[in-house]
Amino acid sequence: MTVTPEQEAEIQAAREERSMTLRRSVPALEALLHRPLSVLDHGFVRVIDYMGDDAAIVQAARVSYGRGTRKVSEDAGLIRYLMRHRHTTPFEMCAIKFHVKLPIFVARQWIRHRMASVNEYSARYSILDREFYLPAPEHLAAQSAANRQGRGEILDEAEAAFVLATLRTDAERAHADYLALLNDEAESPAPDPARRGLARELARMNLTLNTYTQWYWKTDLHNLLHFLELRADAHAQYEIRAYAERMLEILAAWVPLAYQAFLDYRLGAASFSAPMLRVLRRMLAGENVSQPESGLGKREFSEFMAALGREA
Amino acid sequence: MTVTPEQEAEIQAAREERSMTLRRSVPALEALLHRPLSVLDHGFVRVIDYMGDDAAIVQAARVSYGRGTRKVSEDAGLIRYLMRHRHTTPFEMCAIKFHVKLPIFVARQWIRHRMASVNEYSARYSILDREFYLPAPEHLAAQSAANRQGRGEILDEAEAAFVLATLRTDAERAHADYLALLNDEAESPAPDPARRGLARELARMNLTLNTYTQWYWKTDLHNLLHFLELRADAHAQYEIRAYAERMLEILAAWVPLAYQAFLDYRLGAASFSAPMLRVLRRMLAGENVSQPESGLGKREFSEFMAALGREA
Amino acid sequence: MTVTPEQEAEIQAAREERSMTLRRSVPALEALLHRPLSVLDHGFVRVIDYMGDDAAIVQAARVSYGRGTRKVSEDAGLIRYLMRHRHTTPFEMCAIKFHVKLPIFVARQWIRHRMASVNEYSARYSILDREFYLPAPEHLAAQSAANRQGRGEILDEAEAAFVLATLRTDAERAHADYLALLNDEAESPAPDPARRGLARELARMNLTLNTYTQWYWKTDLHNLLHFLELRADAHAQYEIRAYAERMLEILAAWVPLAYQAFLDYRLGAASFSAPMLRVLRRMLAGENVSQPESGLGKREFSEFMAALGREA
Amino acid sequence: MTVTPEQEAEIQAAREERSMTLRRSVPALEALLHRPLSVLDHGFVRVIDYMGDDAAIVQAARVSYGRGTRKVSEDAGLIRYLMRHRHTTPFEMCAIKFHVKLPIFVARQWIRHRMASVNEYSARYSILDREFYLPAPEHLAAQSAANRQGRGEILDEAEAAFVLATLRTDAERAHADYLALLNDEAESPAPDPARRGLARELARMNLTLNTYTQWYWKTDLHNLLHFLELRADAHAQYEIRAYAERMLEILAAWVPLAYQAFLDYRLGAASFSAPMLRVLRRMLAGENVSQPESGLGKREFSEFMAALGREA
Repeated sequence: MTVTPEQEAEIQAAREERSMTLRRSVPALEALLHRPLSVLDHGFVRVIDYMGDDAAIVQAARVSYGRGTRKVSEDAGLIRYLMRHRHTTPFEMCAIKFHVKLPIFVARQWIRHRMASVNEYSARYSILDREFYLPAPEHLAAQSAANRQGRGEILDEAEAAFVLATLRTDAERAHADYLALLNDEAESPAPDPARRGLARELARMNLTLNTYTQWYWKTDLHNLLHFLELRADAHAQYEIRAYAERMLEILAAWVPLAYQAFLDYRLGAASFSAPMLRVLRRMLAGENVSQPESGLGKREFSEFMAALGREA
Repeated sequence: MTVTPEQEAEIQAAREERSMTLRRSVPALEALLHRPLSVLDHGFVRVIDYMGDDAAIVQAARVSYGRGTRKVSEDAGLIRYLMRHRHTTPFEMCAIKFHVKLPIFVARQWIRHRMASVNEYSARYSILDREFYLPAPEHLAAQSAANRQGRGEILDEAEAAFVLATLRTDAERAHADYLALLNDEAESPAPDPARRGLARELARMNLTLNTYTQWYWKTDLHNLLHFLELRADAHAQYEIRAYAERMLEILAAWVPLAYQAFLDYRLGAASFSAPMLRVLRRMLAGENVSQPESGLGKREFSEFMAALGREA
Repeated sequence: MTVTPEQEAEIQAAREERSMTLRRSVPALEALLHRPLSVLDHGFVRVIDYMGDDAAIVQAARVSYGRGTRKVSEDAGLIRYLMRHRHTTPFEMCAIKFHVKLPIFVARQWIRHRMASVNEYSARYSILDREFYLPAPEHLAAQSAANRQGRGEILDEAEAAFVLATLRTDAERAHADYLALLNDEAESPAPDPARRGLARELARMNLTLNTYTQWYWKTDLHNLLHFLELRADAHAQYEIRAYAERMLEILAAWVPLAYQAFLDYRLGAASFSAPMLRVLRRMLAGENVSQPESGLGKREFSEFMAALGREA
Repeated sequence: MTVTPEQEAEIQAAREERSMTLRRSVPALEALLHRPLSVLDHGFVRVIDYMGDDAAIVQAARVSYGRGTRKVSEDAGLIRYLMRHRHTTPFEMCAIKFHVKLPIFVARQWIRHRMASVNEYSARYSILDREFYLPAPEHLAAQSAANRQGRGEILDEAEAAFVLATLRTDAERAHADYLALLNDEAESPAPDPARRGLARELARMNLTLNTYTQWYWKTDLHNLLHFLELRADAHAQYEIRAYAERMLEILAAWVPLAYQAFLDYRLGAASFSAPMLRVLRRMLAGENVSQPESGLGKREFSEFMAALGREA
């Protein structure tokens, strides 16, 4: 993880600035507040601010149900009910703001989640540091033969060495040339006084997609859960999943009841289509249903069996 | 303002629950937190929770500009710059949650603002109290002759008496019949054991549009400013403007620098079209331009003159 | 269904105006275009315009997958795959615009779907017709005892007569008084020249929630499916479900492949939580699992059994 | 402009497929439909589909105003009124879908507009062509000294040659190494059978930010205007402005009345703050107000003078 000395000082200052509030606070999240959690080789995710907790979800749901909810005495039960029935608005009542440092190609996946607010470091305005993502050898995988958008086997040592050398060389050269193009008195290593520097908004196009960027990213709990459902999933690309997994730890600290309900009803759940449900009923009646007899496609049948913990 | 004893107890409890936090707090807003501010005859608006302050706007903008902003030393200046140039994302980094009690016809205008989260009291689930909005006499106005969607002169005493008597009688009868339709053992005044009560989700259709409802409404600062720009405007219907004005007081307590910039660059600003700018240049050159000479339509010309503080 | 003579003329005119286009058209939807489909006693839904078809979904998905999709030869299979895996953006590429006439209390549920565009008839500006929803006797139900937000048994004849008489009388009186308050020369039955009419934006508050309003409502196919999943569901209030069911007919005409996939993977599907999946595996292994042995709550267990077509 | 032979065939086929429709069509836009309009060195923008026209804006506005708009006889006047008063929903009733080919660093700016639907070519799934943006010499500018995020003077021939050689060499090497990492039998120039190819989702990180990508981008007219207001502005980076300018041509063909109103009331308009309006009134009264006397900041004063067509 690379935190600049300037950021380090900011974090220290923020961790020392305590205040008294009439808002609800979450001690387990306060313990993490401002602190960067390391992700990938130079990335991090840290919580900058938050609003609400498990009780805020319950409180919002009870406004809707009014006097009617007097009987629903237990918070955990209500949160589980809301999660099971995909009620979304009570979860929208909580918000969280992260500071994230991440490679540009990950940022490009991440930004597809539109229901969030973003302030990204601007390379039109400032100069990007010489930091780029190089995967650890255990994350260097061959193209999957079965799944066009997936990874297959891990590369062997020689293959990995070739890949890493290539990635490193190209990223380093691209960044060195970026600085040369900028020809910036303060930042370029050997500024050439005979030549004007290229505008920053142009020079940045020379950088590779594994260059690190950073942003503030704020969203509400409902949209965070949606993000995590997609990005903590086994089919997500490892590099964004690494961020999602750190954010799951943060979620557990922030809203432990919602977190557990999310694991049970979302991350660990499976959706069965009408045709799958028909097959399931035959199976429960004792029938042994093969794929051709099921009426399901091959891929669908194997997804179905996987959800049931069976071999296809 | 009508706060139920149950709500009163909740507010008291919330105001006594203090916690220490590493988040930034705003003392002036903490002083208002949870307390209902009266609006119209039975309505209120109160802040339930918030995230961020003026410094959070600045902090987010500085992430974008990176090292480049070292020179912009003054927060107020940066916030004014952001407001003037309609930068939106730094303002999205702050969030606020309100509890609002409001007449249904106001709620129907309010909900058109889509970039917000809402949990409304559900009349499918619970029974609505016998509370409806009756305008104060000084807010009872005749239909405007000039503006099809506006108010004209204030009604005289006799006219107002007729209106209020009608509104009151119809609302009271509709609510009494609502309770009779519900035929609820606990809530209806004279439940008839020989008859089953109508489902709540149906009975509610008998209520009039001035019946009060309530909701939690959460939005970010950018969208709040947009709401206030439209709803605190002189052309907004008085009843929703009354809420917007209370929320402006809250804004002033929460983010005083953004509030002042908002007054200067949004609420108090005027947009001049390309044709208006051409007329303006002629005027500045000393020409006296009448409406026919201006090339502007009559209505547009008079809007233009009004923005310049002149008579059309 | 009540279509004004003015609207009738508009519809006729629109149905006669043919044009040649290079856009893809859907003959089955063209046959319905502009025509109102009756809903409830005075309501309707009609398609005003649309963009895209099943092929547009496929085309958008293939842009994403690029050369990689050459092998996915079959459109239906690809659409089913997208639906099963909850890919959303290809469905967003189709759009549809409806003209809907609906009671205000239904409009209040409908508007909660934020990802849509709305132009509603403005009662600040114009005068609402004397039309209100009165349920057919078979839709008048008692409050459910089991489900606080549901309907129970159908009312008997005497109970229904009481309800209908009440609803009708109150709605008629409220509308008559609305006209009296407006005191509009053209629209009020007995305008009183001695009194000024109340502003429209105020008078409307006297109307009951079953008064009909109308709007243009435009959304994309993804958000339409989300709307239909919630509103065509058996737990939705009958009155909004009646609209959703008509819109399902429209969906079948517009995008027949997406429609069938939607029935199979969304409307007819069931989501099983991690704890449910564990119970299911025990059941498939031949175990007879009762609710207490399942570890599931009572309500959850009965939902689970219902999804499996078994009695709890 | 680089259109693949495959795309060329698709365009031809689409331009030959005519159908009869009851929807409103726009002949001037039909003439452009499907055809790519060239942008930058290899990019393009082309309209794939659309819904609505100027008349649809008017029709939606008239639903809101109901009988009240009978008098507003002229469509252009109503559209100008809506634009001047920033009414947004009638403009949301029109939609348009583009196919765009653009450099990744431009895509990263573009995607910040969240109210749109996107299907982007996936480099997880498919292999990106060897195409990257190299600015024309007249667009190679030095960093601005005055504006940290702007361009200054155009580079001279020698400076430009250095920049272009650097950009070209690095982009070519990065793409060649990308193909070597992929080691794809069909696509890599010299596949090495002794080595497994790196997963596509990883190999792509070696590409530079000027590599071209492509996507389908759909939005409504209101959000398109917002995009154009920001991106056709003189302060927008030239590379995205080049797309916005092409889209302005499309706008003029599609909705000529809205286009003209947009030029007058948005692109060509200026917003004057409350303090500016106070200065303006003094100026109109004949006073000669200097910056120090104005109470405005230096930058604000010079923006103000620029809007008035005066020197600061």
